[in-house]
Amino acid sequence: MRELRRDPVIGRWVIISYERGKRPSVEYEKEPENDSSKTCPFCPGNEHLTSSEIIAYRQAGTQKDKPGWWVRVISNKYPVLGIEGSIKRYGEGMYDRMDGIGAHEVIIETAEHKKELPDLDDKRAEDIIWAYRDRMVDLKKDMRFEYILIFKNRGKAAGATLVHPHSQLIALPMVPVRVRQEQSGAKSYFDYKERCVFCDIIVQELSSPERVVSENDDFVAFCPFASRFPFEMWVMPKKHDSQFDDIQKPEVSSLTQILKMVLSKLNRLLGNPPYNYLLHTSPLRVSKVPYYHWHIEIMPKLTKVAGFEWGTGFYVNPTSPEEAAKFLREVE
Amino acid sequence: MRELRRDPVIGRWVIISYERGKRPSVEYEKEPENDSSKTCPFCPGNEHLTSSEIIAYRQAGTQKDKPGWWVRVISNKYPVLGIEGSIKRYGEGMYDRMDGIGAHEVIIETAEHKKELPDLDDKRAEDIIWAYRDRMVDLKKDMRFEYILIFKNRGKAAGATLVHPHSQLIALPMVPVRVRQEQSGAKSYFDYKERCVFCDIIVQELSSPERVVSENDDFVAFCPFASRFPFEMWVMPKKHDSQFDDIQKPEVSSLTQILKMVLSKLNRLLGNPPYNYLLHTSPLRVSKVPYYHWHIEIMPKLTKVAGFEWGTGFYVNPTSPEEAAKFLREVE
Repeated sequence: MRELRRDPVIGRWVIISYERGKRPSVEYEKEPENDSSKTCPFCPGNEHLTSSEIIAYRQAGTQKDKPGWWVRVISNKYPVLGIEGSIKRYGEGMYDRMDGIGAHEVIIETAEHKKELPDLDDKRAEDIIWAYRDRMVDLKKDMRFEYILIFKNRGKAAGATLVHPHSQLIALPMVPVRVRQEQSGAKSYFDYKERCVFCDIIVQELSSPERVVSENDDFVAFCPFASRFPFEMWVMPKKHDSQFDDIQKPEVSSLTQILKMVLSKLNRLLGNPPYNYLLHTSPLRVSKVPYYHWHIEIMPKLTKVAGFEWGTGFYVNPTSPEEAAKFLREVE
Repeated sequence: MRELRRDPVIGRWVIISYERGKRPSVEYEKEPENDSSKTCPFCPGNEHLTSSEIIAYRQAGTQKDKPGWWVRVISNKYPVLGIEGSIKRYGEGMYDRMDGIGAHEVIIETAEHKKELPDLDDKRAEDIIWAYRDRMVDLKKDMRFEYILIFKNRGKAAGATLVHPHSQLIALPMVPVRVRQEQSGAKSYFDYKERCVFCDIIVQELSSPERVVSENDDFVAFCPFASRFPFEMWVMPKKHDSQFDDIQKPEVSSLTQILKMVLSKLNRLLGNPPYNYLLHTSPLRVSKVPYYHWHIEIMPKLTKVAGFEWGTGFYVNPTSPEEAAKFLREVE
């Protein structure tokens, strides 16, 4: 049973995804499966343990759902939303629901059980970014979807349940509230200044680079001024573009380089901490806009989010972004 | 060094509270001190381990900062905001900062090291609610403050660092973004319907009570339609009031009864799970309004919040609120 429900006060949508009559259980102690490559469903040779592949980048002459791939995209075995159905909304008194429609995919980033993005050859690493783009371009054609989120959970504290490096993609039939807030904040700034707020952020960060961690021709990585988390980093293209899927070949290469660099710094400085990263891009049905600027937000999970943060959306960060950036720059 | 910084896109304020030059450390493994009552700073006899009490309800003839109390309010030893200073805002290019002004207090709920609210006598439990109100009424007089959040973190997964039952209070010099969103959502509903959205929720929940967990003369406790978390519960006064600190004596007694009831059901059903609860009330400088309705939100921490939830403000809940309410009603 999967259903989307909307909170009537805040407008926040929630996915209710449950089995009827199942006894309640306390799930918070569940460990990620610290599986060996023998039993790992994401390792080559175990393709039969996953659903059939949607796309894979693989050696010529190798077969679908068999070894020979280096990036493989599959449907999530436990999807939070299902791909079949209509997007009709219906009311129940004052409440709104809709069927739990959406896509939930897993991007297996490498055939090697423990090789993270920073350990991969450039070409192999670039193909992870190409897989993000290819899936986005394809799913965008399905007019039921309004937003696509690409994200990665690394480590148990960040919500990962398998150790084999992977990212996830979720396509949604509405624009989530958090995305609408970011879009609307950026639009207010543009309406007032007639400039993109993210372009302005880049100018300010580069002109006084105490929060900059790394930079190349096309991208800058920095700890944001109002960082919510210690060692939070944003990776932003220098050229204005509201949509990630416009990315071009040289930019994929620059993005891969800077991501490898900053993730490897994070791993060395903090000893492979748990983290999430998230691709922020425009809603699918918004064409190129001057006020929004796609980027990636990397959030190490070093602190616990408790009642105060939940209640206010107000974070307490025990590390200043200036010091975080300094520590990160100093890591070789 | 404590500073408030505002994200220029979303308008979210962050508290940066740090010691300069401290080496980064991975804090996510920190355990709550599973202290015995001998070393617990919140136990009677150890009052010298905390800052001096702000108020306490105590036996006649006993001394300040000595045993004899049953509820004791102190300043947090590690406050996220400090009480001294001005609320001047200043810019830094496009960014906004202000001094980290605010109050951060701890409400020690009982003299007994392990007695939770549901285990206390009614009168003792009511005094916890009175302490919330008394502190709110007092801090409201300080015109630097715009919002007061009262919350409880119970258990390590919910962010608690001490086991002795306690709640916290934070007074802030601005209205946090999450509160503004709730206020503005409620106001939009009122503008359209000319009715309070929370009053309408109560009518709908009571007329078809499949999500109701408990009810008495003055309050109703239910699992909200769009529950973000398994076994999430909202406790709401039946009579419209936008401000918690208007609460009257009979209502304190009804609120205590229903809180004892639902928290004890939660503990029995799930084996003392970690949870947060949060008091949602109007901003301090908003006088009585027809569109907002104070209430308490209880959020058990059974699932991990990962990249998807962070990126979208879109939650996945594996338990339907109807089933959660049924399980909770069945617990005796």
